Amino acid sequence: MTPRGFLFSVAGAGIKKPGRNDMALIYSEADAVAAGTFTRNKIKAAPVRLDMKRMRSGKGRAIIVNSGNANACTGARGMRNAEEMAALAGAGLGVPEERVFVCSTGVIGVQLPMERMRPAIEEMASNPGGAGIEDAARAIMTTDAFPKLAGRKLRIGGREGKIAGICKGAGMICPDMATMLAFIMTDIAVQRKALKAALKEAVESSFNGITVEGDTSTNDTVIALANGMLGNREITAGSTHFRAFKTALSEITQELSRLIVKDGEGATKLIEVELKGARSESQARKGALCVANSVLVKTALYGSDPNPGRIMAALGRAGIEMREEKTDIHIGGAKVVSRGLLTDRVAEAREVLKGSEIRITIDLHSGRASAMVLTCDLSEEYVRLNAEYTT
Amino acid sequence: MTPRGFLFSVAGAGIKKPGRNDMALIYSEADAVAAGTFTRNKIKAAPVRLDMKRMRSGKGRAIIVNSGNANACTGARGMRNAEEMAALAGAGLGVPEERVFVCSTGVIGVQLPMERMRPAIEEMASNPGGAGIEDAARAIMTTDAFPKLAGRKLRIGGREGKIAGICKGAGMICPDMATMLAFIMTDIAVQRKALKAALKEAVESSFNGITVEGDTSTNDTVIALANGMLGNREITAGSTHFRAFKTALSEITQELSRLIVKDGEGATKLIEVELKGARSESQARKGALCVANSVLVKTALYGSDPNPGRIMAALGRAGIEMREEKTDIHIGGAKVVSRGLLTDRVAEAREVLKGSEIRITIDLHSGRASAMVLTCDLSEEYVRLNAEYTT
Repeated sequence: MTPRGFLFSVAGAGIKKPGRNDMALIYSEADAVAAGTFTRNKIKAAPVRLDMKRMRSGKGRAIIVNSGNANACTGARGMRNAEEMAALAGAGLGVPEERVFVCSTGVIGVQLPMERMRPAIEEMASNPGGAGIEDAARAIMTTDAFPKLAGRKLRIGGREGKIAGICKGAGMICPDMATMLAFIMTDIAVQRKALKAALKEAVESSFNGITVEGDTSTNDTVIALANGMLGNREITAGSTHFRAFKTALSEITQELSRLIVKDGEGATKLIEVELKGARSESQARKGALCVANSVLVKTALYGSDPNPGRIMAALGRAGIEMREEKTDIHIGGAKVVSRGLLTDRVAEAREVLKGSEIRITIDLHSGRASAMVLTCDLSEEYVRLNAEYTT
Repeated sequence: MTPRGFLFSVAGAGIKKPGRNDMALIYSEADAVAAGTFTRNKIKAAPVRLDMKRMRSGKGRAIIVNSGNANACTGARGMRNAEEMAALAGAGLGVPEERVFVCSTGVIGVQLPMERMRPAIEEMASNPGGAGIEDAARAIMTTDAFPKLAGRKLRIGGREGKIAGICKGAGMICPDMATMLAFIMTDIAVQRKALKAALKEAVESSFNGITVEGDTSTNDTVIALANGMLGNREITAGSTHFRAFKTALSEITQELSRLIVKDGEGATKLIEVELKGARSESQARKGALCVANSVLVKTALYGSDPNPGRIMAALGRAGIEMREEKTDIHIGGAKVVSRGLLTDRVAEAREVLKGSEIRITIDLHSGRASAMVLTCDLSEEYVRLNAEYTT
């Protein structure tokens, strides 16, 4: 599934602990068109600030990534370290350092162990292609239980273009997003503006549906590289293949975001919260997020307890237009709230909740807008994991 | 500590389960001046809507309370049941039903078992004074581990007035407030307007400091009754004793709110988050609440893990004016972040975190406003309790 001209290498620098590959290098043999989306958190890690600047060129050749340390809240020294990571990778690969993006994920506020990372970067840069895409997906993991990959093929002018994505992220995405990093690579030639538009739409319909507006970590980054090695005529926003490209990209980001939620720390269930009948899309989203973020709702779902009262209470405090006596709630196929009143189908909902993928559908009957948010349940295991994270 | 003329009775109606007193009746022998504050949740339980209407008179004689069932999301039948509770209590006590307030707390969306509650209300109303104030505090408990009471004495004109408060509430107040009910009783004569003003200020500086604006349950209620049986000249907003009365009232509500946080479900630590150097009081409050509500911060504190990065990340997404490089963070006496950078005092902070009462002080150095928020840590036990709540 790897698109033409993308090479991967990994190395172990013992950043947090020894004995695993905690660095990855993604290299494109040809200059790639680049697009990115970055965290809206006011505190941005050094690599995020560096990448935002470099993304202005719209071009990229490589991405150097480390897990185990976020290089956030690390001041001027942190920025120098991020720059050095790019410089070392660029020097080794023989590409300008300005074309190298840097991503870090892990603990905040600690300086990178550059003395161990330098040789690791040099090793990777001297052997691009020494590893596969799955090794790279594995090296960027932090608390992730499994590597996350997705791919699509797209026929363009008789040839088969490829799009592949890898990502990491397993923190309880809501309500406090742990770092989410995603890298999308394609050999299809795409104009910069078209890539940017397609990525924005794909991220909106996927990663931004599993997090809260602005409620992102210091390091969240999505970078897309299109190196054009398929040799197709460049896709533009108006061209024939743009829609198909956009759809494929969205499918990949949706698949990846679903994997992130499935891998929620300590999560036992994937929860889809669909809110219909809202006055506007933003109200639908706000209401769905308020339910999806409610600790009381999440713990009830974990306990397979169809507690529709907690869902109602979350809707009531979401700050959206809603009327208790108009609200319907379904858990799976069981209508547990009808016009604001609990029904006798709670036992049925309890059975639904024993499954591992659950849809909660809320209809406010107040308008025509809807939104969907993905989340997971909240378990003792989540608390245990997060209480022990840096220690 | 019980103020003159207030009588209590309790009874067991087996509302959620048999074998405990789950109802309480507070009765004032004289007409009392009444003031109240109620949840801002759009979904208001039937008793809340009833009390808000009755509070317009500014007068009250009794409060009938049940635990085990919130009588929320119960439609027209729920309202009829709330009215009947007041009517039965009023009839038994010989006071107009309009002077009886009703409070319920417990599970949402289930109709009250009126057939078991009617005899319990009649029993309580026929024997006012059959129990003490602590019995009442105990009867209104849901997941509370201990009854919550506070009192103050106030010398007025050579005589000693009393103010007493009881409350219940032990849900993780942030981020999802479980129901908080508080009843303040005093024998001091206070004019309605003055009581209202004093209560508003007291609630702002206490209960509202442990919850999020609007992030309240469907049932939150604070009711104050002043029956004037001390015989003092009525306190007005301008009179000599107003300030002292206000202070005493605030001290009581602060003491009660502290007890609520201490009794956080599964909580092992009381956390004070103080945010200084903000541009405005509302920004200070917003920032402090964002830190206090962060599930990642709360779990780190539970694990005695001084993870200042999580505090920084929460500040960065709080939507307030702040600059990373200006921010200082203290955990107890240990300055763990200085001008945005982690210090070497993390080990010291780890020791601080082993205590049961911890203060986190944040200075944004961006203004002169400050705010304080109380919260507790988040443990596996919290998840266990909330996963099993209705089942």
